[in-house]
This record gives sequence, structure tokens and C-alpha cells, in this order.
Amino acid sequence: MKMMSQNELKKLVGEKAVAWVKDGMTVGLGTGSTVKFMVDALAKRIQEEHLNIIGVVTSAATEKQARSLNIPLKSVDDVEKIDLTIDGADEISDDFQGIKGGGAALLFEKIVATNSRKNIWIVDQSKMSKKLGSFPLPVEVIPYGSKKLFSKFSQKGYAPAFRLDDTGQLKRTDSNNLIIDLHLNEINHPHELAAYLSGQVGVVEHGLFLDLVNTVIVGYPDGPSVLKAR
Amino acid sequence: MKMMSQNELKKLVGEKAVAWVKDGMTVGLGTGSTVKFMVDALAKRIQEEHLNIIGVVTSAATEKQARSLNIPLKSVDDVEKIDLTIDGADEISDDFQGIKGGGAALLFEKIVATNSRKNIWIVDQSKMSKKLGSFPLPVEVIPYGSKKLFSKFSQKGYAPAFRLDDTGQLKRTDSNNLIIDLHLNEINHPHELAAYLSGQVGVVEHGLFLDLVNTVIVGYPDGPSVLKAR
Repeated sequence: MKMMSQNELKKLVGEKAVAWVKDGMTVGLGTGSTVKFMVDALAKRIQEEHLNIIGVVTSAATEKQARSLNIPLKSVDDVEKIDLTIDGADEISDDFQGIKGGGAALLFEKIVATNSRKNIWIVDQSKMSKKLGSFPLPVEVIPYGSKKLFSKFSQKGYAPAFRLDDTGQLKRTDSNNLIIDLHLNEINHPHELAAYLSGQVGVVEHGLFLDLVNTVIVGYPDGPSVLKAR
Repeated sequence: MKMMSQNELKKLVGEKAVAWVKDGMTVGLGTGSTVKFMVDALAKRIQEEHLNIIGVVTSAATEKQARSLNIPLKSVDDVEKIDLTIDGADEISDDFQGIKGGGAALLFEKIVATNSRKNIWIVDQSKMSKKLGSFPLPVEVIPYGSKKLFSKFSQKGYAPAFRLDDTGQLKRTDSNNLIIDLHLNEINHPHELAAYLSGQVGVVEHGLFLDLVNTVIVGYPDGPSVLKAR
């Protein structure tokens, strides 16, 4: 079988994902390069099949793309429910727990995901991992007191690093907060870590997305494959 | 004994509190009407006793007052430690747990409090309560998804209300978030409630200040009284 390019593969994964979308659904639209192909495919289905779909976006980038493709959009606060959210992920463990936030959009992504009846992640093969932790865990923090949090994380051995933007300045999120990436290598107890981080004063949100997903579409070199949680 | 006016009492409470300040200390400065008298008294002591004090503020209002009184200020991130923070509270239970956030400054107040070696609360008698919950519990939330959180709190029987400002608009905090006040009447398990709220996606911080304080100075009609945790 002919090996596909990264982009061909992402396109196939995105097209595969929109098969879950049914007429009348409200659909959460994630963020990222694979999601971009999914949004294209969704717009195509809406147009060709005259589907009645409402999109709920997770970032300014996706909002811009969806608007340009005439996908009707609403805020998470203006829809009764979100039937399905399709998003990417930065690392997914064997048991379908995930790390997100590489694009600094974790807060809005998590708000949309937790308000969705079903979440599907679409990723390339490199994101799949036996155990979480090789991708640095993003933590969105309030700027005031963030150096104190950083010290606390250092003392706990979390190897924190403030995220910088392209110009070398501290990266600001859409909510004007900072990101501290924790270089953990291995997360043995994700639920405990999530509770610890959520309880820290000054932590707005963290990139552990737990117990949200039971369907993952993975782009393998020979094509996309749908994995279901056991 | 002659009964004192509310303001005379607040002044005495504030003066009493600054007796805990020692030369060389870094002192967290809370927010509120009683704290205002404390900051006045602190400035007076600094001037008269030539104390070397650094203040760490919790709000723009206190910053303005402290600057006008020439109290040297630093950010929480630029001091090694905070020796003592003196702040007000909206409700304090028999076991010295507290609710704060009536002035919408709970986030910065909690950041300063949790970075302080000692916290003292200064209040009038009306704030003392057998069990927490008569003061509505403020929860600072991200605007995106806040209606969904509101619905969730409603379903749990928390009787939520979005806080409005003087013009009837949604109140914005210093971090540009919203406040949902929970009308709980009675909080039976504050630690469980705190963990639940911290774990909710979109909750930035809540007004439960637990296990932070063992000294409270209360203004009774016949004068201030120092209460210590048993």
C-alpha cells in the first residue's frame, strides 16, 4: 500500500470524523491542523447534504475558518447542548486519557468538551502513548503570583517552564493568562494530579482531559483507524 | 462603657492588627473598609518607628491608598515571602473558616493569603457565624461557558446569581471574569464544596478561604477582641 503524506492522512482523518455528524446536531469544533481538515469536510457535508448544523468554536482561529465556510456558529452559552465535539489532542494514553493545550487553547477547549455529550479526538499516530507525560503538561495560570506557583512546581519536581511566544515574550492566552508547561515525563496518577492542580490558587485550568473520550481516530501511515475504549 | 460608632470600632480593630507587624516584615494588605483603617495605622507606625516594611497589595484600591501613604510596595512575585497578611472577611465560622469575595477581589486576596506565613482577619461582630453559608459564596468564573456553569449550580440547588455592578451590567473582576454568588444558607462540608468548585471547568477561584487563619480580631460594641483558634 502506498504511504500517504502527513497532510493526506490528516485530511482522511478529518473526513472520517465528520461521519459521526448527523443532521440537526450542534457540533463543537476543536483547534489545530487536523481539525482544520475536519472543519473543511464538515462544511462540504453541510453544503452537499443540506445539513442543519450549528458549530461551537474553541478558538479565534477555528471561528475564522468556520465563518469563511459559512458554518452557522453559536456560543457555548447560547446552545442547549453540544451533541458532539471533534478536537485534536497532544498526547493520548492507552486508556484514552489526554493532554491538550499545545496550542494554548486548553481552557475554551475544555469548556466546550465538558459541555459535550460525546467527544472524539482526531490525531496522528505520534500522539498515541502508553502512559501520559511525554508531552509537557500545559497549565494556564493567573499572572499575579505565577512566579510563586512556578517555584512550588519546581519544588515538587515538575520541571516547569513558562511558555514564550514567537517573539520571546511570555505567551498570553485568549483570557490573558500565562502558560506553565510541566515536564513530567511520566504521569502515574492523572486524576490525583488533576485534583492537585485544580486546587492550586492561581491555576485557571490544566491540560489533563480525563474521562471525556471513548472514540479516537488515529492516522496511521496506511490510513485512519477508529479506536474505541474498551 | 460607652458604645463606639462603627468607624471608631473599625479604627481600633485596624490599630490593634498592626501590633503584629514587626520591623523588616513583608506584609500583605487586604481590601475593605476595616483594612483601610489598618493601612492608615500601618503607615503611621512605619513613619513614627522608622520601620522597614514592604507591602503586597490585593487590589487597586488598597494599592492607591498605600502609595498615597508612601508604604513601599512590591508584587507578590517580587518578594521572597510574605510574613503576615491582614485582611477582612465576609463571614467567619466558629472554627475560623471564612468566606471572602464580597468586594470581588477574592482571587488576588487568595493568591496573597496562600503565599503568606500568617494571616489575620479583622472584622466587625456581624461577620462571625456558627456555620458558614449565610453570606452568599462568590465564585469567579470565565465568561465563556458561564451560563452552563450557572445551570449546573442551579440544578445542584446552589441558588446562583450573577453579580451585577452599579449600572446593572455583569460585574467584571480585575481579571475580567464574572462572579456567580451561591446562596447556600448553610455549608455543611466546606472542604468538599471547595474541591468540587475548584474541579469545575470555568471556575477560576471561589470564596472559601479554608485553613488559612488562626487569629481573628473582632470589633465588638465595647471594643476589639483577639480570638485565637483552639
